[in-house]
Amino acid sequence: MKTGQYYKVESVPPRRLKKFMNFPMVPRVVFGNGSFDQLGGILMSKRKHSEAPFIFLVDDVFESKRLPERIPLIFNDQIIFVSANEEPKTYQVDALVNKIKEEFSDLPSGIVGIGGGTLLDLAKAVSILLTNEGSATDYQGWDLVDTPAVYHVGIPTISGTGAEVSRTTVLLGPEKKLGINSDHTTFDQVVLDPELIQDVPLEQWFYTGMDCFIHCIESLNGTYLNAFSQSYGEKALELCKEVYLGDLGPAESRDKLMMASWHGGMSIAYSQVGVAHAMSYGLSYLLGVRHGIGNCLVFQHLEEYYPKGVALFQTMREKHGIELPKGICAGLTETDLDIMVSVALDLAPLWENALGVRWRDKIGPEKLKSIYRKI
Amino acid sequence: MKTGQYYKVESVPPRRLKKFMNFPMVPRVVFGNGSFDQLGGILMSKRKHSEAPFIFLVDDVFESKRLPERIPLIFNDQIIFVSANEEPKTYQVDALVNKIKEEFSDLPSGIVGIGGGTLLDLAKAVSILLTNEGSATDYQGWDLVDTPAVYHVGIPTISGTGAEVSRTTVLLGPEKKLGINSDHTTFDQVVLDPELIQDVPLEQWFYTGMDCFIHCIESLNGTYLNAFSQSYGEKALELCKEVYLGDLGPAESRDKLMMASWHGGMSIAYSQVGVAHAMSYGLSYLLGVRHGIGNCLVFQHLEEYYPKGVALFQTMREKHGIELPKGICAGLTETDLDIMVSVALDLAPLWENALGVRWRDKIGPEKLKSIYRKI
Repeated sequence: MKTGQYYKVESVPPRRLKKFMNFPMVPRVVFGNGSFDQLGGILMSKRKHSEAPFIFLVDDVFESKRLPERIPLIFNDQIIFVSANEEPKTYQVDALVNKIKEEFSDLPSGIVGIGGGTLLDLAKAVSILLTNEGSATDYQGWDLVDTPAVYHVGIPTISGTGAEVSRTTVLLGPEKKLGINSDHTTFDQVVLDPELIQDVPLEQWFYTGMDCFIHCIESLNGTYLNAFSQSYGEKALELCKEVYLGDLGPAESRDKLMMASWHGGMSIAYSQVGVAHAMSYGLSYLLGVRHGIGNCLVFQHLEEYYPKGVALFQTMREKHGIELPKGICAGLTETDLDIMVSVALDLAPLWENALGVRWRDKIGPEKLKSIYRKI
Repeated sequence: MKTGQYYKVESVPPRRLKKFMNFPMVPRVVFGNGSFDQLGGILMSKRKHSEAPFIFLVDDVFESKRLPERIPLIFNDQIIFVSANEEPKTYQVDALVNKIKEEFSDLPSGIVGIGGGTLLDLAKAVSILLTNEGSATDYQGWDLVDTPAVYHVGIPTISGTGAEVSRTTVLLGPEKKLGINSDHTTFDQVVLDPELIQDVPLEQWFYTGMDCFIHCIESLNGTYLNAFSQSYGEKALELCKEVYLGDLGPAESRDKLMMASWHGGMSIAYSQVGVAHAMSYGLSYLLGVRHGIGNCLVFQHLEEYYPKGVALFQTMREKHGIELPKGICAGLTETDLDIMVSVALDLAPLWENALGVRWRDKIGPEKLKSIYRKI
């Protein structure tokens, strides 16, 4: 079933899906240091009744911190702490949905995701699966979601993925890593409070920011690009350069990174990511490598495709004293490599964006394996 | 009643209204040459039933052109051609609403505005007044609209005002020129088709684009600015420079101007316009001067407040051979000048943004009159 749907989706010419996409934007956004404390008022008008709770999915790094005390809990609202140590998975979504359905007789008033890309993607997927039957795996693909999700709010505490603004939630399934791409995926409300990203550890700050940077390099160099996506991508890239190569104070740097992620996510509307993201998906699928670091591990070896971008990346990496891990793929068998190559090459729209419609003539399994072996 | 509401609104500290504004973004946007032809499909899903028409408010410059033939009319849909020779007025909104209510027993499925800022502002206001009782004058101010508007779509055919993305519709009333600023004002859908702006006459192209440029100069130099608005404003300004000072081909120039207007409108979320807009409102109110040219007429004399912006403006003006009219205020009486000064100085948030909270110590009627006299 899932595999069938997957291939059905892949058989649609992907560029056609993007060309005149009626892009859903986040309809409400509040920005500013301290804006997190607006949340209570924002949610109040969306409460259906006292038995319909708000469920807050919160990154468990905040479990012993002050942030949970600031969450505006009333009635039977619930906080669920979730580890973001691994990529979000379809079975996690299904388990969360079952837990919520078992515990509450009424559908929640809404789901609030507080965390990085993992928590935001989980919040989106849970809100969809609460109103759409079956498993999260049934909806991985393009436009397979029919029923609107429950109201859902995204509050990033790490910036770079663009998950706060995108119409996808990328999930690792038993067979495929693929997004639930739909108009119902986009958040109904986003709260951008730069103070929330101030305690992100250096390496995570770097890898997640590089997700945005690599997004931009891939979309600005892609064949799908139009002026809408270009203008957002250029601004996001400029902000990344200011944050990672400039000389900003900490508050200004947080502000600008948060906006870089926002614009970077918007730039995907009519564009697409490319080689690094496709290959990084293979790494995540087989080895569970996190998305941000996975992109960096691949991107460093892509000077053939993105020469200026890779040079800039190396300068940023050196400036912040980041050493990428080595030998990740050293112990892999040919079968392992074949699996990663297969996951990567299945993402046809990414390759078409990067290399054009005749991409299959330009790249193949051997080339991908040679890059994976360097990682 | 109107005056009372107006002063009530003005007495709220204006910066507080902006600081953590939960900004409503246009929830759906489609971009691209030829995207106008997506309109039929977009509207189909929003049709309530066959007796609830779509009303298309269309700039009457298109009356004998091909565009009306491409409007996807079905059932009892109606096109109403409206002249954009004058600024949109509250009595025009009331007349359009009465006409629609008299002619149709059912509330329309939606209102579609096709034109420049005037048509877009009329479409927004008509959609609000169809569901909110009374006259448009009752809602001029901040957050006076309680009931959601009917579904409304904006399709710009001139770029620069940012009306396609803003939460205001600026109307000229019997006493005041003031926007209906509300969460219900924002369009539900925008179609950005750069081909639609290709026949705009040179002067209108220049003056309307300068509305965006002057927006950006005022907001980037204002005291309200935060990183959200700054990032949009910087991108819009950069695009304006490319369009008016660069060496782009016509298609690329249209694409970029359309995006400049979009980002310029977004930049107003947490910022505000300034001296030129405030004074231009006075010119429009007394003399009916169009908003775009009014801004230019004022802005050319504001080197004291925006030195770099004014220098850049003069370079653009010269490059495109635009001669601004002179002697506009030559025949005015002191009473006339007093009226314009009064309209301009009433716009406290604009002055606070431009000159800070102590703006009343820094500028007064005599200074404004001396600037008006140069125009």
